[in-house]
Amino acid sequence: MIVSALLTSVGINTALCVLFFTLYSILRKQSSNYKVYIPRLLALGASRITPFNLKQLIPSPDWVAKAWSISEEDLFTSAGLDALVFMRLITFSLKIFAFAGVIGILVLVPINGWGNQLEEVDIVDFAGNSLDVFTITNVNSGSNWLWVHFFAVYIVSGFTCLQLHHEYKYIASKRISYFSSCKPQPHQFTILVHSIPTSSSCSISDSVESFFKDLYPSTYLSHVVIRRTNKIQTLLSKSKNLYRRIAQLRSNPTQQKYKHGGGIFGFFGPKDNLIDHYGKKLEDIEENLRLKQSEASLIAEEARAAFVFFKSRYGAASAFHLQPSINPTQWITEPAPQPHDVFWPFFSESFMKQWISKLVVIVVCISFTILFLIPVVIVQGLTNLKQLEVLFPSLKSILAVKFVTQVITGYLPSLILQMSLKLVPPVMGFLSSIQGYISHSDIEMSASKKVIWFTVWNVFFATVFSGSVFHQLEVILDLRDITGKLAVAVPAQASFFITYVATTGWTNVLSELLQIIPLISSLIKRPFTKQEDEFEAPSFFYHRDVPRVLFFGLLGITYFFLAPLILPFLLVYLCLAYIIYRNQFTNVYTPKYETAGRFWPIVHDSMIFSLVLMQLIAVGSFALKKLSPASTWTLPLPVFTLLFNHYCRRRFLPIFTAYSAESLIKKDREDEKDTSMGEFYNQLLNVYKDPALFPIQHSSNTDSLVSPLLS
Amino acid sequence: MIVSALLTSVGINTALCVLFFTLYSILRKQSSNYKVYIPRLLALGASRITPFNLKQLIPSPDWVAKAWSISEEDLFTSAGLDALVFMRLITFSLKIFAFAGVIGILVLVPINGWGNQLEEVDIVDFAGNSLDVFTITNVNSGSNWLWVHFFAVYIVSGFTCLQLHHEYKYIASKRISYFSSCKPQPHQFTILVHSIPTSSSCSISDSVESFFKDLYPSTYLSHVVIRRTNKIQTLLSKSKNLYRRIAQLRSNPTQQKYKHGGGIFGFFGPKDNLIDHYGKKLEDIEENLRLKQSEASLIAEEARAAFVFFKSRYGAASAFHLQPSINPTQWITEPAPQPHDVFWPFFSESFMKQWISKLVVIVVCISFTILFLIPVVIVQGLTNLKQLEVLFPSLKSILAVKFVTQVITGYLPSLILQMSLKLVPPVMGFLSSIQGYISHSDIEMSASKKVIWFTVWNVFFATVFSGSVFHQLEVILDLRDITGKLAVAVPAQASFFITYVATTGWTNVLSELLQIIPLISSLIKRPFTKQEDEFEAPSFFYHRDVPRVLFFGLLGITYFFLAPLILPFLLVYLCLAYIIYRNQFTNVYTPKYETAGRFWPIVHDSMIFSLVLMQLIAVGSFALKKLSPASTWTLPLPVFTLLFNHYCRRRFLPIFTAYSAESLIKKDREDEKDTSMGEFYNQLLNVYKDPALFPIQHSSNTDSLVSPLLS
Repeated sequence: MIVSALLTSVGINTALCVLFFTLYSILRKQSSNYKVYIPRLLALGASRITPFNLKQLIPSPDWVAKAWSISEEDLFTSAGLDALVFMRLITFSLKIFAFAGVIGILVLVPINGWGNQLEEVDIVDFAGNSLDVFTITNVNSGSNWLWVHFFAVYIVSGFTCLQLHHEYKYIASKRISYFSSCKPQPHQFTILVHSIPTSSSCSISDSVESFFKDLYPSTYLSHVVIRRTNKIQTLLSKSKNLYRRIAQLRSNPTQQKYKHGGGIFGFFGPKDNLIDHYGKKLEDIEENLRLKQSEASLIAEEARAAFVFFKSRYGAASAFHLQPSINPTQWITEPAPQPHDVFWPFFSESFMKQWISKLVVIVVCISFTILFLIPVVIVQGLTNLKQLEVLFPSLKSILAVKFVTQVITGYLPSLILQMSLKLVPPVMGFLSSIQGYISHSDIEMSASKKVIWFTVWNVFFATVFSGSVFHQLEVILDLRDITGKLAVAVPAQASFFITYVATTGWTNVLSELLQIIPLISSLIKRPFTKQEDEFEAPSFFYHRDVPRVLFFGLLGITYFFLAPLILPFLLVYLCLAYIIYRNQFTNVYTPKYETAGRFWPIVHDSMIFSLVLMQLIAVGSFALKKLSPASTWTLPLPVFTLLFNHYCRRRFLPIFTAYSAESLIKKDREDEKDTSMGEFYNQLLNVYKDPALFPIQHSSNTDSLVSPLLS
Repeated sequence: MIVSALLTSVGINTALCVLFFTLYSILRKQSSNYKVYIPRLLALGASRITPFNLKQLIPSPDWVAKAWSISEEDLFTSAGLDALVFMRLITFSLKIFAFAGVIGILVLVPINGWGNQLEEVDIVDFAGNSLDVFTITNVNSGSNWLWVHFFAVYIVSGFTCLQLHHEYKYIASKRISYFSSCKPQPHQFTILVHSIPTSSSCSISDSVESFFKDLYPSTYLSHVVIRRTNKIQTLLSKSKNLYRRIAQLRSNPTQQKYKHGGGIFGFFGPKDNLIDHYGKKLEDIEENLRLKQSEASLIAEEARAAFVFFKSRYGAASAFHLQPSINPTQWITEPAPQPHDVFWPFFSESFMKQWISKLVVIVVCISFTILFLIPVVIVQGLTNLKQLEVLFPSLKSILAVKFVTQVITGYLPSLILQMSLKLVPPVMGFLSSIQGYISHSDIEMSASKKVIWFTVWNVFFATVFSGSVFHQLEVILDLRDITGKLAVAVPAQASFFITYVATTGWTNVLSELLQIIPLISSLIKRPFTKQEDEFEAPSFFYHRDVPRVLFFGLLGITYFFLAPLILPFLLVYLCLAYIIYRNQFTNVYTPKYETAGRFWPIVHDSMIFSLVLMQLIAVGSFALKKLSPASTWTLPLPVFTLLFNHYCRRRFLPIFTAYSAESLIKKDREDEKDTSMGEFYNQLLNVYKDPALFPIQHSSNTDSLVSPLLS
C-alpha cells in the first residue's frame, strides 16, 4: 500500500461522506421518511406529517450542531444512563487518541520517516512512498531514536490508565446516584427463584409460599409462579401473521391480483373469499389460544420457577445473596430483571435442555470464532489482481487502469472483511439468546463479550498470523517468544488497518447514519403495509454498537506507536460516531430497559487487554530492533497495568454487580415515609406477567376488517 | 532399574519396617517417651508415670489392632470432623487403588509383559528383567491388546468419579449435620470487618458502633476493636525467653558451670547473681509490657479492624454476604474465624505492607517452585556412579560390589528428593503466614494448595521433562502436541517412581511413625528442661499431611495403566498411613480448631486434575502406539470428567463455603427457646481477645523462683 492508494481511498470516502451528509440532510426532512429517521420522536407523539416547504429540499447542517451541543443531562433524561455511558466510551476514546495522536504525528511519524531500515522517504514522489516508511519498521536497528518510542509507550499507558480510572469512578458514581434518586422499581423488590423442587403433595405455588414465608416472615410479600407458554407463543405468532396478512389484503386492493393469482393452497377465488378463509382460520387459532391460556393456570403448566416479591429492597437482596436451601442445586436465586427486560422464552425449556444448549452454544461459538476466517480469506483472495485476471479475462483492460487497481487493492479486501463482520453480531446475539439467560440485557452483555473476543481473535491474531487455521493455532499454542512473534506480525498489518479505518470504518458509520438498510426495507415495505401498522421505535443493541466502537479503540491503542498514521483516521471516525450516536439516541432509539451502565466493566477490561497487548508488542519490537535495555525496561509496564486493573476490580467492579446494604437500607427507610408504597406493592404483583398470557384482541379487530366485506 | 534392584530396595524397607514397628512397640511403653508418643492423652490428663513392668520391654502389636478397629464415631468424638475427613481421604485412595490394582496386576501387567516392543520377558533370569518390561512401553505398536488398556482407563475413571461423588456427598452431609448438631459457637455470630474508614471526629470504635447499629438495629449486638500489638508481641516473646532461661538455671544446678563459664556479656559471677540479673531484666520488660498493654486501649493504637457480634447467625451471615458500604474498599467483611484460629499478627501490619508482602509471596513462591529442582538435580547427579568414582577414587572398590551399586542407584536419588521435599511444607507454611490471611486454618489451606502445586510441577512436569529449567519451561510453554510429549516423558519415569514409593514412601511413613525427629529433639532437650514446662500437644498440619497423601494419590492415578506395578506398593503405603494416622490422631494431635472438612474441595480438585492428566497421557500413549481410534475415543473422557467436576462444584462446593439461610434460620429459631443464650452473648464479648493483651503472670512466678535464692 502506497500513500497515493491511501489518498485515493480517503478521497472516495470523503466524497461519499459529503454526499451522504447532504442526502441525509435532505431526506430526514421528508415526512415519508420520519418512520426511519425519527421513530423515537414519533413514538413520543411527534406529528407525522409536516406541510411541504421549500426548505425541505435544501440540505442544512443544523442537526449536526444540535447533536454536538446536547448536554449530558439532556442525554440522560432523554435516553437514560446506558446511552450516557455509551457516549462516555466515545469521548473517552477521543481523549486518548487526541493525546496519542499529537505524540504520534508530531514526534513518532517524523522519527519513523527519518530512518532508512526499509527505504528512505522519497520527498519528490511523496505519494509513491509506501505507508510502511512511516511505521516503526523503518527505524534503524539499535537506533537510539527508539527511546522516544519507549517514552511514548510509557506516557500513553499512564495517560490511558488515568483516564480509565477517571471514567470508572465517574460512571460508578453516576450509577450510585441513579440508584439513590430513582423511584421504587419492581425489580429492586423481586428475586427470581428457579429449580424449585417438586413434591406430589403440593403445587409449586404452595411450595414457594411456604418456603419463603417460613424463612422470611417479616419481609416476604408475595410471588408469581411462571407458566410454560411455548405452545401459546407458537400460536400467538401464527395468529399475528394471519392478522397481518388480512390487514394487508384489506388495505391493498391491487395486491391480490398478482400475488395470489395462483396460490399453492388452491385459492383462486376473489379476495373476499380469501379474507373470509383467513378470518375463519384466525378465529380457530384464537379459540385454541384462549383454551391454552386458560389451561396455563393449571398446576400441570407450572414451570419450576417463580418471581418472589419482598416488602423491602434489603429483604430481596439478602434473600438473593444467601443461598436459601441446604441443597445448592435447588431454590437457586437470581436478582430479577426489569419487567420489560425478562426473556420469557427461557422459562419454557427444561433444565436439561438449557444445559445442553449452553454447552452446544459454547462449542459452536468457539468453532465459529476459529473457523470464520476461512471463507473470508478465500473471498478476499479473489480480489487478488492476478486471480481476477485469470477468472475474468475480459476485465484485463480495466484492471490495467491505475485508479481501478488502487481501488481494488485498497478498498475491496477490507470491504469484504467488514461485510462479513456484519454477520457476527446477529449470529452471536442468536447464540446468546439460546444460552439460558433470563433477561434481554444479559443476552446483550454476553453477546457483546462474544463479539469482542471474536474480533480480538480474528482481527488481531488470525489475520495477523497469516496461513492456514491450523498453522495459526499452532503459532498461538506455542507460547515461547510470543512477544517476538507479535512484534513481527502485528506491524506488518499496519497499512492494511490504516486503509481499513480510513475506508470501511467511515463507510460503516455513514451507512448507519443514512440508515440505508432500514430506509431501503421501509421503501420496499411501504406499498404493502399501512403506515400505522404496529409502529415501534427500535432499541439500542449493545452487542452491535459497543464492540464496534471498542474495536476501533483496540486498534488505536495497539497501533499507536507502531503506526501512528492510523490515529487521525480514528479521530475522524470517532467524531463521526460522536455526532451520529448523539443524533440515532435523540431521534431513533428508545431504551426498553436500563442497565445503569452495567456494560462498562466489559469496556474497561477490553481497554486493559489492548494496553497490555500493546506493551507486549513494544517489548518484542524493542528486542527485535536490538535495543534490549528498552525491551527489558518495558517489561514492568504490563505488570503495573495488571496491578492497576486489579485495584480497579476491587474498587469499582462490586458497584456494577450489586448494590450495597448501606444504599439499600437508606432507600428502604425513605420509602417507609412514603404513603404510596401500598399501591406500589399492589402493582408489583401484576407487572411480572408473561405477555403470552395477556388476553388477545386481534379477532375482534379483524371482524371489523372482515365484516364490511361479508355484509 | 531392574527387578532385583527393586527387590533389594523393598527388602531393605521391609526389614526397616519390621525393626521400626518393633522399636516403636517397645519405646511407646516407656513413660519417659510419653511426651512424644501420647502428648494428647497427657494433655487430656493421663498419668505421666506408670510403674515399671517387664511387659514394657516386650514388643506387642496391640496398638495396631486398636488403631484399625476405631470406629468413625469414636474418631469424630475424639479428634473432630477434620480428622475424620482426613481418614476418608486415605480410605478413598485405598478403595481406588485396590480396584485399579486388581485390574492392573491381573490384567495389564501380563499384557505388558507379553509384548516385545522393548524386549521379551526373560523368564529364566526373572530378577534381571528391567521394570520397563512391565510398563505399557513394552506393548507392541498397533497391538489390539491396547484396547484392554483403553477399557481399563474408562472403567477406572468411571469408578473414581463415582467414588469422588460418593465422598463429596458424604462429607457434605457430615458437614451439614455437624452444623445442625453443634452448640452455638462464637464465630457463627461474628464477622470480621476491616479497612474501616478513619475520621477525625470519632474513634474507630465509635464508627463501628454507629455504622452497624444504624444498618442492623435489630441484630447488632456489640463489637471489639482490634489493637495494634506488634510491639507487645515482641516484648512478650522476650520476656518468655528470659523466663525460660531463669527456669532452666533454677532447675539445673550443673548447667551454669560449662555453659556460662565465660559469658559474652561479661558475667562471671555465681548462678545466683545471674538469676538475679535476669530477674531484674524480666521485671523491667514486664513493667514496660504492662505500660504498653495499658497504652493499647488508647485510640491511637486502634487497628482499622474489628470483630462485630450479632444476635443471630443469620444476622451475621447477611451482614457478611451483602457489601456493607457504598465504597467497596471500605468496611470489608469476612466471616470470623474461630477464636483459637485467629492469626493475630495479621492485624499489626498496615494494608500497604500486607499488599506488598502478598505480591512478594506470590513471586517468591513461583520462583521457588520453578527453580527448586536445580540444586536437587545437582546433588542427585552426585549419586551417578561414574561421577562418584571421579570425586572419591577411594570408593572405587566399594562401588564395584553389586549390592552397593543397587542401593545407590535405587535408593539414594529418591532419598535425596524426598529429603529436599521435606523442606517444602515449612517454607510454604511460612510464605502463607505472611500473605495476609486472618486465620491459621486459611494459612494451612493456602499452604496446602501451594505444596500440591509445587509437587505437581516438580514431580510430574519438571522431573519428567528432563533438562535445564529453561528447556523445561520452553517445553511446557509450547502447548502443541502436549499429550504426545507427556506420553513419551511420563512412562519413562515409571521405574523411578515405583522405587520411590517402595523405598522412601515407606521410610517416610515409618520415620513419622517413630516420630524420630520429635524423639531426638526431646532427648536433646531433656537435660535442660523441666518435664512439666509448658506442655502442649501438637496440632495437625494440613499443609504437611494432606499433600503427602494426595501426592501418592496423584501418582497412583496417573501411573495406574502406564505402570501398574506401582499400585501394590501404594496400597502398602496407604495401609501403613491408615494405621499410623489413626494412632498420631488418638494419641498425638489435639485439634486447635475445626474447619469441618473445609479442605475436601482441594482434595477433590487434585484428584480431578490427576484423572484428566492420566486421560490426556492415555490419549497421547495410544497415538504413539499407532492405535489412533483408541486415542480418538479416549478424548471424550477428559471432557466428561470436567463436566462431572462442573456438576460437583455446583452441587457440593457451596456447602463448603457458607451455610444456607435455611439452616442458619433453623438453628437461630432453636436458640430462641434456649434460656442460656443471654450468658452466651455475654461470653461472646470476651472470647475474641488478643492473647497479647492478657495480663502477664511470669514475673510473680519468677519471684517465687528467684526469692528463695535472694533471701
